This record gives sequence, C-alpha cells and structure tokens, in this order.
Amino acid sequence: MAQRNFTVVGGGPVGTLLAIALARHGYKVGLYEGRPDSRQTSIYQGRSINIALSDRGWTSLDRIGIGADARSHSIPMYHRAVHDINGNLTMLPYGKQGNAIWSVSRSGINEQLLDIADSEENISTYFEHRLVDIDFATASTKFSRIDSDELLVNADFAFGADGANSKVRRLAHDLPRFSYSQTYMPQSYIELNIPANPDGTHRIEKNALHIWPRKDFMLIALPNPDGSFTCTLFLNYEGEPSFTALRERAAVQNFFESNFADAMDYLERPVDVFMEKTAAPLFLVHVFPWSFNRKVGLIGDAAHAIVPFYGQGMNSGFEDCAALNELIGELGHDWDAIFPAYENSRKPNADAIAELSKRNFVEMSDLSGDPRFQLQKKIEAKFSERYPELWTPLYSMVTFSPQIPYSDALQTGDEQKQIMEQIMALPGVEEDWDKPYVMDRLLELATAAFGPQSQAQAKRSSGCATDSS
Amino acid sequence: MAQRNFTVVGGGPVGTLLAIALARHGYKVGLYEGRPDSRQTSIYQGRSINIALSDRGWTSLDRIGIGADARSHSIPMYHRAVHDINGNLTMLPYGKQGNAIWSVSRSGINEQLLDIADSEENISTYFEHRLVDIDFATASTKFSRIDSDELLVNADFAFGADGANSKVRRLAHDLPRFSYSQTYMPQSYIELNIPANPDGTHRIEKNALHIWPRKDFMLIALPNPDGSFTCTLFLNYEGEPSFTALRERAAVQNFFESNFADAMDYLERPVDVFMEKTAAPLFLVHVFPWSFNRKVGLIGDAAHAIVPFYGQGMNSGFEDCAALNELIGELGHDWDAIFPAYENSRKPNADAIAELSKRNFVEMSDLSGDPRFQLQKKIEAKFSERYPELWTPLYSMVTFSPQIPYSDALQTGDEQKQIMEQIMALPGVEEDWDKPYVMDRLLELATAAFGPQSQAQAKRSSGCATDSS
Repeated sequence: MAQRNFTVVGGGPVGTLLAIALARHGYKVGLYEGRPDSRQTSIYQGRSINIALSDRGWTSLDRIGIGADARSHSIPMYHRAVHDINGNLTMLPYGKQGNAIWSVSRSGINEQLLDIADSEENISTYFEHRLVDIDFATASTKFSRIDSDELLVNADFAFGADGANSKVRRLAHDLPRFSYSQTYMPQSYIELNIPANPDGTHRIEKNALHIWPRKDFMLIALPNPDGSFTCTLFLNYEGEPSFTALRERAAVQNFFESNFADAMDYLERPVDVFMEKTAAPLFLVHVFPWSFNRKVGLIGDAAHAIVPFYGQGMNSGFEDCAALNELIGELGHDWDAIFPAYENSRKPNADAIAELSKRNFVEMSDLSGDPRFQLQKKIEAKFSERYPELWTPLYSMVTFSPQIPYSDALQTGDEQKQIMEQIMALPGVEEDWDKPYVMDRLLELATAAFGPQSQAQAKRSSGCATDSS
Repeated sequence: MAQRNFTVVGGGPVGTLLAIALARHGYKVGLYEGRPDSRQTSIYQGRSINIALSDRGWTSLDRIGIGADARSHSIPMYHRAVHDINGNLTMLPYGKQGNAIWSVSRSGINEQLLDIADSEENISTYFEHRLVDIDFATASTKFSRIDSDELLVNADFAFGADGANSKVRRLAHDLPRFSYSQTYMPQSYIELNIPANPDGTHRIEKNALHIWPRKDFMLIALPNPDGSFTCTLFLNYEGEPSFTALRERAAVQNFFESNFADAMDYLERPVDVFMEKTAAPLFLVHVFPWSFNRKVGLIGDAAHAIVPFYGQGMNSGFEDCAALNELIGELGHDWDAIFPAYENSRKPNADAIAELSKRNFVEMSDLSGDPRFQLQKKIEAKFSERYPELWTPLYSMVTFSPQIPYSDALQTGDEQKQIMEQIMALPGVEEDWDKPYVMDRLLELATAAFGPQSQAQAKRSSGCATDSS
C-alpha cells in the first residue's frame, strides 16, 4: 500500500503529539498551525502560561515512546496550600507520600514536542497556516496564509487538534446527525503574577498548588521554574461579586484586600491587571461523533474542551493520542475500524472528566476551606493506606492512576461519596475519627461495595472497563 | 416616542403569531419568510403535514386575542388507539370525559394566521426573503431575494422565529457566552399516508391518535379533515431494525408485514414510500440566553426545538408568544426588562417540555402497549377523579392544564412517579387495584406529598411558580 497522508490541524501539544504518533506508524503527516512558531518569535500565543500535568499525561507520552525531558523542566506540587481569609495556611497532601502533580510551562512542552516532530522524517510542519475550510468527505483542507494565496491540501485523512475553539468542529456543525454543545460556566478568569525573589527563589512554598478558596470565587497559584508563580483568579462573570460588577478601581482594591490580604504582599499590581484585562470565559464542549465519514477526526480540546479545575485538560488530550496510537496497531491500520473504536472508547472518558472537572470547582473553591471536608479527606487517606485494594481516593484515581479509566473513576467516586456521607454522619465522628469503630464501619461499607464479592469487583474482573487505555 | 420597528425572521405559525402580538401592541413589524406564500402557490413547504394542538395552544391564541376558527378545522382525538402486534385495539382515553388533543393541519393554521397578519395595518409580510446575516448589536438584517439584490433591513429589534434549524440562532453561535446544544435522537422518521374512503370518511377510528407501539420503533396516525390519516414511522437511524439496515425491498416488505399487519390494509404504498424517502432526523436544541444585547430575541423552535412525542412543539411556541405578549404590557414596553424577563421565565419551561417530550417516546412506543402501564393509568385516573385537588395525571397537566407551567408539571410528575411505583409494588395490585386499600394507600402518599400541609402546597401558595403564564 502506498504511504498514506494525514493532515493535522493545530500544532499545540496534542496536535504535535498526534503527529508524532502517526509519523512513527509510518504515515506522512502535514502539521498545520495558525500561529507563528514560538521558537522563532519567542512570543508564545498559546492560551495559558502553565498547566498541570500528572501521571496520566506522563504515561501517555511513555506509551507513544516519548521519554520527554519535560519532567525535568517541571515543578512537582505535593500539596494544596490552602490560604484562609485570615492568611492561615493549611497543607493538604494530594495523595500518598511522593504523589505529585506537576506544574509545566505550556510553551515549554509544546516546543519540546515540536522539536521532536522536526526530527521525524515523516512530519512537515507549517506555521501561520489558518484553516479556512475542510471537506469532510475527502479530508482535503484549505488554509489561508500571510502574503500568499490560499493553500489546498489533499490527504487521506485529517484530524482537528485545533483546541477548544476548534474550527474543524465548528465547520462540522452542519453535518447530518452531529450532536454538539457548548456550555459556559458562570465563572470567567484572568491571570495574575507573583514575581520571583531577587535571587530567583520562590516567594511562597514552591512545591504546592496554592489556593485561596472563597466559595463563589478563588485565586490559585502554580509555581514556575524561574521563581515566579502564575496565578488565576476565577470569579463569576455576573452577580456580586463579579467581573461585571467590579468596575471601579476602589472596589477592586477593596475586593483584593479583603479577600486575598496575605497575597497582596506578593501579587504584582493585581488591581492594575484586573482593570486592564478582559476576563476570559470558561466553557465545556461535548460533541458526538468525533469522526466523520471515516476520514476526519477530532482530538483533545477540539473534541471535549473542559474546565481547568481538575488539571486534566492536557492529560486527557495526551491520553486520546495514546489510545489512538494503540488502536492503530491493534486494528492493523484499518481506519474504518479505528475511528469508531477510538470515539466509542474515549467518549465516555471525556464525558467523565468533563463532569469531574466541573464538580471540582466546588471542591477547590469551597470545600478545600471546610474543616469537615478536610477531615473526610483525612479519614479516606488513612483508610486507603490501610486497605489500598478497597479504596483509592477519587482524586488519586483521576490523577495518579492512569490505569483506571476516567469513567470508572467517576463511578467509583460516586459510590465512595455515598459511603463517606454515612461515615461523616456518625455521631461524634469529628472527635472519634481516629478510633477503631470508624475504620471498622468504613471497612464494612467498603467491603460490601468494592470487596471481592461485590458487583464492582465482578465487573472489573470481567474486563468491562470502557477504555483499554 | 416614535413608533418602533421589529423584524421577525420566519413566517411560520410562531413567527406570524408573534408578529400579530407585536403589531397589536403598536409596533411596526416586518415579517420575513424564506419560502413562497403557500396561499399563492398551493404548495406548502413547511415541515410536517399535521400537528397536535392542545389547550395550551388554544389558550395562548386566546391570550393574544385571536379567537381563531382553527378549532373548527381540526379534529379532536379523545383516545390513544393502541394497535398491538396481533391487530388488537385498545382505546386509552387521554384525560377525563371530553378532554381531547386536536389534529390540526399545519398549513391550515399557518395560513389562517397569515390572513390575520395581512389584515393588521402594522404588519408587512415578505415571502421568498432568506436571512443571510444579522447584526446582533443593531438588529439590522440582510436577506437574499430571487432575481433581486440583497436587502438590508434596519429595525429597533429583531426576533428569530425561524424554526428548529434557525439561521438567527446559528449566526449567534459565535457570540460571547452563548451556550448551545443540538442533540440528535437515535430515531429518524418518515411520513406515510392512509387515504380516505371513497366517500371521504375515515377508514379507521377518526377521533383517536393511533399508535402501533413496537418498543424500539412505532407508527402513529393522526386524522385529517379530508378523511385521510397522516402517519409517521419513528425508527432508529442505525442498528437492527433501522432505516440504515433496511435497504432491501423484501426486508422492508417483511418489516411492515410482520410489525404492522393490520395497517397494511390501509397504508398507501408504504414499502414504496419507505424505499423512496430519506428519513428525517429528530433533534433537540437547548440554548441560553434567548436574547442578545436587548436587541435580538429567539422564540419557538428557534430557541428550543424539541421532539414531537408529547405533541407540544407548536403549543410551547404559541405559549412563548403569549408570555411575551403579556410581559410587553406588564413591563411597559421596556425591552431592557422584557428580554431578560421573557427568557428567564420561559427557559425552565422549555427545558421541562424538552425533557418530557424525550421521555414520552418510551411511553408511547413501549409502555402504551404494556398492561401494567395501562393499569397504572387506570388507577391514576380513578384517584384523580376522586381527589382532583390532590392529583392531576402528568399527561393532563401538560396537555389540558395551561395554568400549570411545564416546569411544575415535570416536577410534580416526578413526585407522582415515585408514589405510583410504591402503589404498583403492592402485592396483588393487579387483581386488587379497585379495592379500597389501594386507594387508601394512594391517598395517604398523595396527601403527604401534595396535601395542604405538604411542601409542594407551601411552595404553590407562596407563588414560587417559575412562569406566570
């Protein structure tokens, strides 16, 4: 068979990783990106400055055969550092000893992947090529270029890896039987900055994700290797308080001082930045199918844009690539089989992480400051350490257990929640949480739900997971 | 104040009714329809041949002051006539004695409303004007015309009443913070015909909505005044059996003969029609907001396309018009207040009827053929007759009780469902259903849920309904 061609629309981290996976399977890949090459311009126009990567992301890179040195440029965060309104700090570990999520520079990982793509013979990368149109029957695409005519590209197959605002997906809106939704969250966000100390060290605890949870809104901070922190303020778009309501400088000043007093020593001109910047919206995208005519597919945010509250956006996109990478081998390059297998296995997982990421806003902005919630986490952690075969906390399933599909994590997490509600309803649990009867009751409930005789275990043994990834 | 202008995009029943309501409030209205005027061409290109109207639709017309003589051209359907696979017929009343839903010719009611619009001095109607673009900041619109240049129309406000595939809504997709979804049902449909007897009478029971429920698919038939029935076959798009799987003529013949044997005596060339026609998809549309910049609104199917299984599509669109009509008066023509009041009051009701209409496929295609379901209906009807203040069956709330908002009907219906599950779980209920203890238990449960001391009653008394309509 002649070598087959792929067009990949979008040269962000997911599109570039996909291109590498396809090229290593022997396909010829054209990788088209609308923005300039940030390695040339030193101006990165991607969406956010840093992101969280976790085991699922690293494992996906491994599965595609990329021993990325990204990890060496990233900063492990072992704790949530919760700042209460009086400036008191509580450190909540993310998982067991050594478990961490990693603060990664988005541009850094993108550029590393582009460097790998450049070294692949089968990949040609084109910057400043903006998708204008796509023919979903033939996979041919049309790109606009600066100072040049439109370019028509023919290929055997195409993928839209063009992110949350995917043009490929928007062009698919009019295809028959294409279901889609785009749902805005009440919150919008702006990015703020905490600069490094003069000596390049971090001004607050480096190996933590800092949260200032204030119920309806929150500030978070992720460490950067240069000693700075990138902060994000999530706040309602409308209502009180909100980006819309906070128009006067004095009100903004007061908002920061009364809610983030301890951070005011560090934040760089937060009031100025608030007044200058336009808040960016947050939205979720659900679509199905993820492929059209067995010719064109969607991947990453283009197929399932989520909100950032679980730190799983890029992780799930990388996991799409890894799952597809394996299906190519398993199904012998038969794309009539690969496209449906890919979308049917990945869709339930994308829906699950979308749901989990939406719910996690409440956990971060409200519950993380709630002593009862922290107690519940402590009980769960203790139980999980003692009975790891019965209980992995939901956060750890999502973040540190890439072998558990998101959809299984969501389901198990819901069952755990019902059990923990019963535990937290035990009279005197707040004083007695460390006493044997609490663990005994939890053991009883967990064994019934997840033990060897339970339905869940029967299902797991029968291999009914929704995703082999 | 100078007379203000509205552009209404879409001259179907909802757009025309809206135009009339606006004109009678003193606005100057341009009503633009892409299709030709069916009163001139005698070819009606609207979507379906007949539709069900019910009290909610009639009441909405009344509220706008239209004593439509539509009712005289419509046929009351007092029963579901359920045809089982062996040709046995069961008549299930829709409600109490005299309650009916009405089979109406879509073109007939549209043309009647257009005639009324023509008699309104403030309305100018333009056919064969297709919307090309709309400026959501200014409400100016652009239309393409046959044999003529594009037309630019300026107005103070505009409404998209352009149906399930609304162009206005599609053009709004790129507006900031516009949430939208379009979800395909697994079923598609084709229309079939049962012709009249030679003497113009109906070949099967006239005053009924006929259903051939076959679980995953069904055939229904609505009577027309000319003696014919318009039938709709709802069948999965893919799978077994489905429009996709049934490709061979012999298989289609066999499908009809084994599933609709008794109808084969009446249906007009069903196999030919099946082979010739392309099945139409069914989809639901959810969007929010329903207005943009206090200048442009959406109404009817354009704002909330639903599936036809509750017969409420046009009813809910007419109700939008009636609610808006009253808000114009209540809020003194202040459109900065009218648009948000309109969308906030109508959205929960649109969501509720969308959910109810989706669920009703199962009720029609599966449960209506189930003896236990029919028994449950019988118990509910008996109880409701005895205690009307405690219980109106869900179907009657939706169809015969326009004073109950859809969202309240959905919520009450869910509470009723839980109660009826307990009643149907009573041992021996199938033999004993008429005995006092069944009614007594139902009275006990219903009083707790809906009696004077109940939460529901407290809520109703406090006037917390979501819609004043």
